Amino acid sequence: LSEEHKAKARDRQSQLTKPPGSLGQLEDLAIQLAGLQHLDRPCVDRVQISVFAGDHGVVAEGISRFPQSVTAAMVRNFAAGGAAINVLARTLDAALEVINLGTVDHLDDVDAVVHCVQGPGTANFVHEAAMTEAQLLGAFDAGRDSVTRAKAAGMQLFVAGEMGIGNTTAAAALACALTGQSPDDLAGPGTGLDETGVRHKAEVLRRALGCHQGHLDEPLEALRRLGGFEIAAMCGAYIAAAQAGLPVLIDGFISSSAALAAVRICPPARAWMMFGHSSAEPGHALLLRALQADAMLDLGMRLGEGSGAATALPLLRLACHLHNEMATFAEAGVAAG
Amino acid sequence: LSEEHKAKARDRQSQLTKPPGSLGQLEDLAIQLAGLQHLDRPCVDRVQISVFAGDHGVVAEGISRFPQSVTAAMVRNFAAGGAAINVLARTLDAALEVINLGTVDHLDDVDAVVHCVQGPGTANFVHEAAMTEAQLLGAFDAGRDSVTRAKAAGMQLFVAGEMGIGNTTAAAALACALTGQSPDDLAGPGTGLDETGVRHKAEVLRRALGCHQGHLDEPLEALRRLGGFEIAAMCGAYIAAAQAGLPVLIDGFISSSAALAAVRICPPARAWMMFGHSSAEPGHALLLRALQADAMLDLGMRLGEGSGAATALPLLRLACHLHNEMATFAEAGVAAG
Repeated sequence: LSEEHKAKARDRQSQLTKPPGSLGQLEDLAIQLAGLQHLDRPCVDRVQISVFAGDHGVVAEGISRFPQSVTAAMVRNFAAGGAAINVLARTLDAALEVINLGTVDHLDDVDAVVHCVQGPGTANFVHEAAMTEAQLLGAFDAGRDSVTRAKAAGMQLFVAGEMGIGNTTAAAALACALTGQSPDDLAGPGTGLDETGVRHKAEVLRRALGCHQGHLDEPLEALRRLGGFEIAAMCGAYIAAAQAGLPVLIDGFISSSAALAAVRICPPARAWMMFGHSSAEPGHALLLRALQADAMLDLGMRLGEGSGAATALPLLRLACHLHNEMATFAEAGVAAG
Repeated sequence: LSEEHKAKARDRQSQLTKPPGSLGQLEDLAIQLAGLQHLDRPCVDRVQISVFAGDHGVVAEGISRFPQSVTAAMVRNFAAGGAAINVLARTLDAALEVINLGTVDHLDDVDAVVHCVQGPGTANFVHEAAMTEAQLLGAFDAGRDSVTRAKAAGMQLFVAGEMGIGNTTAAAALACALTGQSPDDLAGPGTGLDETGVRHKAEVLRRALGCHQGHLDEPLEALRRLGGFEIAAMCGAYIAAAQAGLPVLIDGFISSSAALAAVRICPPARAWMMFGHSSAEPGHALLLRALQADAMLDLGMRLGEGSGAATALPLLRLACHLHNEMATFAEAGVAAG
């Protein structure tokens, strides 16, 4: 992070032909990016969106209104270009890749996907650790490899998205472990549970936390026991992105649980994170607070796939263009007030 | 407004490969646009931004921290392409036109601007009506003409922006008259007044309202007495857009005062309005409430020029692309939950 570039960017913002501060968060975003990218003219034209998919053993507890087969079916939908994140990536001219980390239904025949299969879904963390150490590290590496590819392709911003039926339950369990908050505060409707369903989900979370009690102090171990393949991959990606000097735009609830794990494992990773949106999933506000983050958008979105971050991408791009292309008071011959 | 197209759009949203409602406001926006445009596949690729500029006699009361010459200087900046709205329009591939309604400094030599001069700025409404009837109608017509040009050019969305030193004072005065709220609730810092400045602005508003007491019941007459050339033009544009069946994306405080006047003059105009952002100018929340409007963005912006609406435009476009291009559950072979 370059404090010098941040200071120069702040100075430039004060010279642009507008009342000081009148572009609000767009000014702050441009200044933050200038510091992260070590550039006078920040730019996020080249963006990679990596969507990580995996299944969750905890679905056996009846915590989702969608059947588990939907994870693989949605990966096929990603491969065919029909999902929300495909439309967003195309419209935004962002590179999109999908990483299969392991689903109950097989996906061997799908070519348009990176296969890093760690198993046919995680184990049910109500009874045992979600992942073995080998699976955790395998998923972590899959995330790191995505960032390596993004860096090699000259990307200026990285977005991680996810797909995994049951993964709001895994994210909530991990968030409980990392924040010490109660399951009642972190269990939410996910893809559409009713009140009874949410209460049951909180009960499942309580049983899971009970099962792993005494083993959740280390964030990496909490991630192994309560997370998911895609959550571990995103966590690995966020840490790798910080190490590679690549800013990341964080999506919603699941992504933020991975982001919080990443920050607990590697605190300097926080500086590289920007936050696209505030999800309708109620626990997200709590995660954003734990991350001391303000999100750009609040549109009631709760889809995942990286969709909230992608929707916020135009704001970052506009912030850069305004910063880079507006005339200064001196250039325009306008009195600075 | 086509209820049939709205219903069809709502039905399509429920079939797209995502949990129902999970795209939040983006779903509502697509459904609203489908109804307004009478289309199965709404589209806002073609957008016109018309920026209306004019000076304000009330600046004599010391209610702005910028000198009045900045209005004309900024029009020159628009013509040269250096202002925020220029950068936004270029980046968003939107057509931009600037309409000079009358400034203290002359602009006769500026070619890249539509000249509809109603006088060298309005009169000081603390002592007399801001506009004559002829000026009011001239400004109104300038707005209507912009919409006529937009319609003729096949535009799918209209954005009005404004520039006018002192125009938060005029907008606040008009808002007081239209809502019955007190000057203390509607006087804000504008381009950057301190607390003393805001208190003085509220006092100026009180004097203005006292001067015109008994003549503010008709919204058109309130607009003539307390508004500005650019506010009247935007009001005329919003009414004309509704009559022409062209959706409008409303910007911030000034635009919303014009929008409220338009709705009071012609209530059906409300249905054609979408609201881009919630301004940092404190009175904007009150205007949005009076318009029963939810804005898409809340980024602490307070620049005007149409910049907040322009910043929200990508959200509308993404909403349309998602609605039009996502696969349905049936097309993708995904279980609908």
